[in-house]
Parts: sequence; structure tokens; C-alpha cells
Amino acid sequence: MIMYLNGQYVPREQALIPVEDRGFIFGDGIYEGVRSVGDKMFEWAAHADRFENGLKGLRINFSRAQIDALEAVCERVVQENGLVDGEAFLYLQVSRGAAPRTHFFPAATVAPTVFVSASKLVVPRKMREEGCSAVTFPDMRWKRRDWKTVNLLGNVLARQAASEAGAYEAILHEDGVVTEGAATNVFAVFNGVLQTHPLTERILPGITRKVVMALVAELGIPVREEPIPFARLTKADELFVCGSTTDVTPVVKVDGTPVGNGKPGPISEKLRDAFEARLYGSVGAGR
Amino acid sequence: MIMYLNGQYVPREQALIPVEDRGFIFGDGIYEGVRSVGDKMFEWAAHADRFENGLKGLRINFSRAQIDALEAVCERVVQENGLVDGEAFLYLQVSRGAAPRTHFFPAATVAPTVFVSASKLVVPRKMREEGCSAVTFPDMRWKRRDWKTVNLLGNVLARQAASEAGAYEAILHEDGVVTEGAATNVFAVFNGVLQTHPLTERILPGITRKVVMALVAELGIPVREEPIPFARLTKADELFVCGSTTDVTPVVKVDGTPVGNGKPGPISEKLRDAFEARLYGSVGAGR
Repeated sequence: MIMYLNGQYVPREQALIPVEDRGFIFGDGIYEGVRSVGDKMFEWAAHADRFENGLKGLRINFSRAQIDALEAVCERVVQENGLVDGEAFLYLQVSRGAAPRTHFFPAATVAPTVFVSASKLVVPRKMREEGCSAVTFPDMRWKRRDWKTVNLLGNVLARQAASEAGAYEAILHEDGVVTEGAATNVFAVFNGVLQTHPLTERILPGITRKVVMALVAELGIPVREEPIPFARLTKADELFVCGSTTDVTPVVKVDGTPVGNGKPGPISEKLRDAFEARLYGSVGAGR
Repeated sequence: MIMYLNGQYVPREQALIPVEDRGFIFGDGIYEGVRSVGDKMFEWAAHADRFENGLKGLRINFSRAQIDALEAVCERVVQENGLVDGEAFLYLQVSRGAAPRTHFFPAATVAPTVFVSASKLVVPRKMREEGCSAVTFPDMRWKRRDWKTVNLLGNVLARQAASEAGAYEAILHEDGVVTEGAATNVFAVFNGVLQTHPLTERILPGITRKVVMALVAELGIPVREEPIPFARLTKADELFVCGSTTDVTPVVKVDGTPVGNGKPGPISEKLRDAFEARLYGSVGAGR
């Protein structure tokens, strides 16, 4: 496996960073996860916008021009790893770089660490068709979830709980409402109306969420951006989660309780199919 | 500078870890900061207890015996760096190790990454005597602050704000109460009674806090473990912060407003002096 690290394309074994990197010491970095189909990055501009917003939030010196240049890096990493004929998950991370440990920022001369890797993505078709199960888990994360930082322990522990329960995702809740999934956004359907948490500092502005919202408008599906009350979660007619590797995946079971009739609902299926048409159509490559 | 990394003592330039280390990717690790005087680690057992608690919390496979063995590693790192004649700050971190990225835990065969470094500590005597200034900052951290994890962005941004204001520390507040400092615990004095946040998941159980609480009992100073209302912070008669590099340091100014008469108060000074006597006495080395 070939990875990009600070300007070089190197084998995994040579992709090494100083142990004093602030990513390792403080979780002081921002990342992105981008879907590729063939050699095209899906919704690159939207990912770049979000990357820029997080880096500005943490005040890491990495310009928009430097972000933009990573699109070609992603394409090359896909090629170097022989992933052009299929789909891949691109992982991009920029940390504040390596410096002697101080909580406050190091000198501006410290260069950020820039990392890009690609891994083959095999879409789990059966789960997309039949739906997945989820568990619920308290949202333990910090207060700026709109920045895609690597302070991810709240997400790690939630996904681990899901994994141990044999579920795909953990749906997070806080103060009586559903925020989002450990690595997805969450949508519910009540009486034909879609409902999802509004874009605040409490959730990540998902790129797949953004595409889904555009599709919802195009398809004329009514939607309310209001938090889903946690107590009503399992009373939803339909549930689905969405994300850059999850696409739109119906949720048919929560904590062992069937959602609706225990099968993917019609609005979820319509959006799943419309999303896939957009994904595979807009990047100009067939499945 | 010689560092310990995964069983080896290496120069800083050779202290490298895989970029896929979960410390870098998720902030998936626990750390400790230990004070040494000469070649003795102050309150080692208490640090080891806290380290163990955090590692158990995150379920990182690193046993108490492995933690205990790090005391000798710390001593050697102090020696290798020629710090035996003075004081040092020992930094210890254990991450869940390097593995292909999944939010859930990797296979149990993945070995944790173990890192120890030492840096010379020069005690800022003048600040200990005259007191420091602090700013206030919202507590943005996640919900398990009792585990000393490296998900530290909330602390980083707070200390950066302090640094930019020319202050030593940032005092964090949330829901109308003072939690703690960005890298210290906070004590206030109201009418002769000490007050500090109780030990809950909302704050770090500071080792210096623990020693201070023992000294408070020995000296017969009345204390209440109740959160300090944020609105009353600058109305305190005295304030001090404490931590493994801060010891007991009076706070004489908050957001530019003098605390009390703007000078270290008598209870703060008594505890500062008692703490130093314990620090330099119990480890068996003079200043």
C-alpha cells in the first residue's frame, strides 16, 4: 500500500511521523473521508469546503490552495494502489505538526503534517438493500462537532459498542435528542415527513447529508430540520443513516427493536436509489 | 534528547511512529505527566493508579504490571538526558497502537504504542511567589474528563487563548460553574473556606489536587468540594491553580480583574509552601 505523507508517496512501512506530532499528543488535527469511484472524487469541492472550515476553526496553517492541491494527490494515491477500476475510501488528515509539547500552539514555522491514504471500498450491497441494525449510545463528544477533528474517542467507543452488539452503527443521543451516528447523519420519517438534526455545532455537516437534502428538494419530499426526540426514535416509520462510506443505508432495527415493519421504508429506498444514481452518475463512472 | 519508544531508548529524530497509529488518527490514548526531583518520581503510585484507570476506561490492553515497569523507564530517561541534578517533567503516553483505520477497536494482537520523554523543568519562582493571571474560557471538552486522554483540543484552544492574553492559565466553565483549568485544578477561598469542584467525570482527578486535599486536612483548613459558581469566580477572596508542573500557584488576576487585593492570599501561600515542602521533602532531594 502506497501512502502520501508530507509530499512523498511511500510504502505503508515508511509512512512514519515523529511521536511528538501534535496529532498524536493532542489529537490536534482535521481529517476528511472522501469517496472515489474510478479516479474521480465524489463531491470534492464540498469536502474541501468542510476541510477548510475545520482547519480555520483550529487555526492550522494550511491554505485553501493547499487543500485544493490534495485532489490530485488523492487521484494519484488511487492510481498508485491500483484502485482506479473500483471504488475507494480516501482518508486525508492535516495535523498541526510536530513540536515539543505545549498546549498552546507552536511557532508558525512548524509545518503541518499532511497524510493521504486510500483503501478499497466494497459496497455491502446486501446491507444497502435489506437495511442495517443500530444501537443507541450517549453522545460523549466535545462541543465543536461541526469541525471534523481527530478527537474521536466518543465516536470510537460508540462504534465499538455497536460492533460488540453485532450492529453496524451507533446512534448518539444527548439531552433527550438524537444528534447523529458515530460516523453518519441520522434521518427519521414520521407520517411521511423526514426529520433530521439541523446544522449546528452539535453535529457534523455531512457531505452525504448535503446531497440527500438536495435530492429531497428535487423529489419534493417534505423535511424538517429539527432534532429527533430520543424517546421517539424507535417509533419512527422509517430510519436511515448516511455518510461517505455508508451512502444511504436504511436502519431496520434499533437496540433490537424493529423500526416500522422491520424492513426498509419507501422514502429511505427512494433516497438510497436516488443517491446511488447521483454518486455513480455524477462522477462519470459505472459501478 | 533521548526518548523511550516501544522498548527502545532512541534520539528524538528516531522516535517515529506509523502514521496509522490510533493516537494520531483518533486521539485513542492515555497519558500522564509526572514530576521528577532528582531521579525520584513524585507521587508515582498515584499517577500509576490514574493511568490504569484511564487505560481500563478505554480498554487499552496495558496491564498494571506494564504501568509499574514504566517507573524505571522514567528514571532511565531522566538519567539519559542528564536531568538527575534538577527537576524534570516526565511525559508518558500509551495509545491503542497502529492498525488500519476502523472506529471500533483493532484485533487484540495489535500492540499498544508506549512513549516516555523527559524535559527539564525550571520552576518559575517569581510566578509562584507573586501569583499568575488567568483568563476564563468555555469548557468544550468531552464527557469523560476523569480519563487523562489525548483528546485535548478543548484544552489546547483554552491554553492558546490564555497565551494570547499574556496569561498563564485558562479557567474553564460550563453550565454556570467552574470545572477546572486547562491543565490544572482550580481552588477558591470564600470567607476562609476552600472550594473546589468535586471528583466527578467532569474534571481530571489531579495528583497535585490530591496532595493539596491531604495537606488541607493536616492543616485543618475548611474545604467544600462543591463547584464554584462561575459568577462568583472573581469575587473569591483567593484563587489558586495546581498541577504537576504548576504545583500550587496563586491566581491574582482573572480576565484582567484583580482577585481579592490582587496579591496571593494567606491560605494559598500556606498551601503553596506546604506543597513544596512535601514535594522536595518526600522525594528526598533538596531544591
